[in-house]
Amino acid sequence: MDPVLVEVVRGDRVESWHSGIAVVVDANGTILLRIGDVDRSIYLRSAAKPLQALPLVASGAADRWSLTDAEIALACGSHAGEPIHVATAATMLQKAGRDASCLECGVHWPLGEEAARTLAASGGIPSALHNNCSGKHAGFICLACFRGLDPSGYAQPSHPAMREVTAALAETTGISMDDARRGIDGCSIPTFAIPLRALATGFARLGTGHRLSPSLSTAATRIRSAVAANPLMVAGTGRFDTRIATLFGETVLCKCGAEGTAAATVPGQGLGIAVKIDDGAGRAVEVAMVALLQRFLPTSMTANDEFQALAVRTLRNWNGVVVGTLRAC
Amino acid sequence: MDPVLVEVVRGDRVESWHSGIAVVVDANGTILLRIGDVDRSIYLRSAAKPLQALPLVASGAADRWSLTDAEIALACGSHAGEPIHVATAATMLQKAGRDASCLECGVHWPLGEEAARTLAASGGIPSALHNNCSGKHAGFICLACFRGLDPSGYAQPSHPAMREVTAALAETTGISMDDARRGIDGCSIPTFAIPLRALATGFARLGTGHRLSPSLSTAATRIRSAVAANPLMVAGTGRFDTRIATLFGETVLCKCGAEGTAAATVPGQGLGIAVKIDDGAGRAVEVAMVALLQRFLPTSMTANDEFQALAVRTLRNWNGVVVGTLRAC
Repeated sequence: MDPVLVEVVRGDRVESWHSGIAVVVDANGTILLRIGDVDRSIYLRSAAKPLQALPLVASGAADRWSLTDAEIALACGSHAGEPIHVATAATMLQKAGRDASCLECGVHWPLGEEAARTLAASGGIPSALHNNCSGKHAGFICLACFRGLDPSGYAQPSHPAMREVTAALAETTGISMDDARRGIDGCSIPTFAIPLRALATGFARLGTGHRLSPSLSTAATRIRSAVAANPLMVAGTGRFDTRIATLFGETVLCKCGAEGTAAATVPGQGLGIAVKIDDGAGRAVEVAMVALLQRFLPTSMTANDEFQALAVRTLRNWNGVVVGTLRAC
Repeated sequence: MDPVLVEVVRGDRVESWHSGIAVVVDANGTILLRIGDVDRSIYLRSAAKPLQALPLVASGAADRWSLTDAEIALACGSHAGEPIHVATAATMLQKAGRDASCLECGVHWPLGEEAARTLAASGGIPSALHNNCSGKHAGFICLACFRGLDPSGYAQPSHPAMREVTAALAETTGISMDDARRGIDGCSIPTFAIPLRALATGFARLGTGHRLSPSLSTAATRIRSAVAANPLMVAGTGRFDTRIATLFGETVLCKCGAEGTAAATVPGQGLGIAVKIDDGAGRAVEVAMVALLQRFLPTSMTANDEFQALAVRTLRNWNGVVVGTLRAC
């Protein structure tokens, strides 16, 4: 069994808890901190998005279609379906001469509850542009069109554009993305199960360019600065990755994914961090990631109310009464 | 560490899992099935609602205010905030000469996503009536008014109406609800941490009346038939407790609560069942409860597609593609 990483306290008792695994490595993959069996394979899910966006930039597609930093950040994001996200994804497709009919991510109501209610209040219904992955998918389509390919089927493992994305995952993480590791993600693209440690290594390399080809290394720099300059694009109003990007700018790039996955890089220290919560809880992976950041960042960067509010979450009920806390162990 | 009760499979790998504890007892509290440390205390949360509704009926308040079975079922429920739920809670308050301004549960958007969007689409905003606990709270107010009490403050442990509710919890579960066990629930009423086994015993007695006073025993019968006759009131369209009530009628009464709690009774067999998922996941407690029901109900009642769909959940992505399953271990 894995160690408990996060506990949920109500009154003076632990009501629930979350076990998991976590690792911090340098760009060689050398382990600096290890909690649990960090060689266990976990599905990358959306934690991989910043790595999956590398070919969009490295290929020259982003420049060819004059993508802005905001658009590149959206390609790395799991967005909340706010109007700015929808509009940005639509513009990316338009720049490549395509539209939302090319998206193969499926349709869901905006992840952001307020965005969903605003859409409903306007009499609207969601399209594929509202899917939290539409920016990533628009990036894949931009890549496919840049390569002169028909984007149709780009979400399939065999499509040349998806092969290029998968190759970037392999180069950054050092893991061969063979078929035995492959599952299907919520947005229908392949997701791969690889050791947690390798995900962290991939993020250390995203942060440093170490062992990456020159084009991927340059793309990594662009992606980090694009997300840092556009925190809202990587997630959404009030959401975790956005709050981290807002707090830390280029000092930390963090990306959460479904089923309690998250990865981050601290480029200045050459670090990659990865966490997987066994039960898949998003609330827990955020708190665990913050605890790891707190350990490696200088106190001067974490001794502020905004960061501390992320580290120990005060749980309030519907009347605003404090009923407990969510905290790392 | 507790045993794994439920696992989430993607592709051919277990992606996430949920550990927990579960117990099946008879009305004497004798254990028929035990998984993990079932003497561990867990907060009852909304799993206790059918027990908390007993005084409303046993006192005579429900008859005094001419509450219907639908209204009694709502008092036992965690509803989705659908229009029928809101209207029913409002009527309960009206019958006692009160209105929504008396509710002390706080305000949140409907739990049901479609209900929330429908409300937003109509230009509405939520009131305390939309709180999933408004039926329970309306029941408390009906009880207070029947006793000739000012309902103000009814959510506090010291209010006489709440003391009567707490006494019913103690009588059914056999546990003294002392202050050391008390936390604050999401809707601001007290919630108590008691052994999982005692929660199961309370439900076995709800199902049989065994060891209850005549008035509580009669009330238990009314509550069971009220929920069985009004499945939609105990939860909402497509929600778990509603589906169980629809499938089984008076054969099974099941109630889930926050943080992965659930309790059920199978009156015909004199059984009480309780489950707590360590990490608090609702998706897991439902699957675990179904697995326990499957073990104790005759095959003729569980060998249907609707039940099997609850037992092994097929996970589909936004394009409807099967990506995995959620299943009991």
